[in-house]
Amino acid sequence: MSAPRAVVLLSGGLDSATVLAIACNAGFDCHTLSLDYGQRHRAELGAAERVAQALGAAEHRVVKLGLDAIGGSALTDNAINVPTLGDSDGIPVTYVPARNTVFLSLALGYAEVLGAQDIFIGVNAVDYSGYPDCRPEFIEAFAQLTRLATKRGVEQGEAMRIHTPLIDLTKAQIIQRGAALGIDYAQTVSCYQADAAGRACGVCDSCRFRATGFADAGVDDPTVYQAGQSG
Amino acid sequence: MSAPRAVVLLSGGLDSATVLAIACNAGFDCHTLSLDYGQRHRAELGAAERVAQALGAAEHRVVKLGLDAIGGSALTDNAINVPTLGDSDGIPVTYVPARNTVFLSLALGYAEVLGAQDIFIGVNAVDYSGYPDCRPEFIEAFAQLTRLATKRGVEQGEAMRIHTPLIDLTKAQIIQRGAALGIDYAQTVSCYQADAAGRACGVCDSCRFRATGFADAGVDDPTVYQAGQSG
Repeated sequence: MSAPRAVVLLSGGLDSATVLAIACNAGFDCHTLSLDYGQRHRAELGAAERVAQALGAAEHRVVKLGLDAIGGSALTDNAINVPTLGDSDGIPVTYVPARNTVFLSLALGYAEVLGAQDIFIGVNAVDYSGYPDCRPEFIEAFAQLTRLATKRGVEQGEAMRIHTPLIDLTKAQIIQRGAALGIDYAQTVSCYQADAAGRACGVCDSCRFRATGFADAGVDDPTVYQAGQSG
Repeated sequence: MSAPRAVVLLSGGLDSATVLAIACNAGFDCHTLSLDYGQRHRAELGAAERVAQALGAAEHRVVKLGLDAIGGSALTDNAINVPTLGDSDGIPVTYVPARNTVFLSLALGYAEVLGAQDIFIGVNAVDYSGYPDCRPEFIEAFAQLTRLATKRGVEQGEAMRIHTPLIDLTKAQIIQRGAALGIDYAQTVSCYQADAAGRACGVCDSCRFRATGFADAGVDDPTVYQAGQSG
């Protein structure tokens, strides 16, 4: 019997790389999906490709999505600066409007095409930076929606399984889990404003979470920083 | 007091043009959104722009979305032929996987950016061609999801209002409604395989529904067909 197919949303960051390792380790035939949504940190797209290959994904695809046409986030709108002081209360400007709803919808479409019933996403409710669409109740509502949204849901009454293996883990626990699965985190890019070579700024929210995570995990941090910055 | 903003999903077809006329007539400040998703019938994108202008939309935006990267539909995959005989049982090959989930997600993101709380979509449960994501229960589940998915939903406990003014109408009733609102349906393109000038094939499911709709409505059909075809 062949391994069941799964769609794994892969940004090229630390979290989604860990999710992919977990999904592969669980025996799924993993089809990775990256979204090229006009993000500033385009180096993560190259990272996603490298990570998919290194971890043995069956296939890696990239869907282009012009979110810059609607703007509204520091990650897609150059008129909004990426915050670096960790001083944001509430939902930060790096929130991409409806991002995980859009990403899960595309994963859902791809899962339908593949005949897969499992979707993996690296959302995290602990170090989630205040994004609404990283919470368990959002994921559960989306899973319920899939029962009504798809050909398979309608014809066979089945919902997609939305796997969120990181949802209750701290960044340190995520890193420990991935290190145990043999991930080379040097291949991943987390920085919101990484340069073309994938080197990190060291000061954005994402860099700070990552650096603290490695320190707390007691794992050597392989992140390469831009000149003059440190984690 | 200024008019409330609404996002109106506008494909350039007959249904969504009617929805836009209804939304404008209801007093909304309408921001139209089209998806350039690699559809065969690209003439509808030009139609959407003309319709948005003719009906007085405040702004028209186009988001590019590379659905061809995941394939799975006759509308985005040239390896699958568009059916022309009306003989499909169940869900036809023109179904784009998770299409309305993806489109509503993008409308949701745009609504967040605009501070809008109203989204209009031209789904129709009568002549819906067998698509799962055109049914009222799907729309209701999506509306519930928005309460958990967005900044506004989280901070103010408010769900988006998803308006589906066509959901219970026949194609003939839609046409009568739009004609009463003064729509020039010659500007719209419904055909799944329209040529570059927007001329219809006359034989695909969408053409047949449209032609029958005009006949049943007793409204003159302004559709321009390709040479050798008729509605």
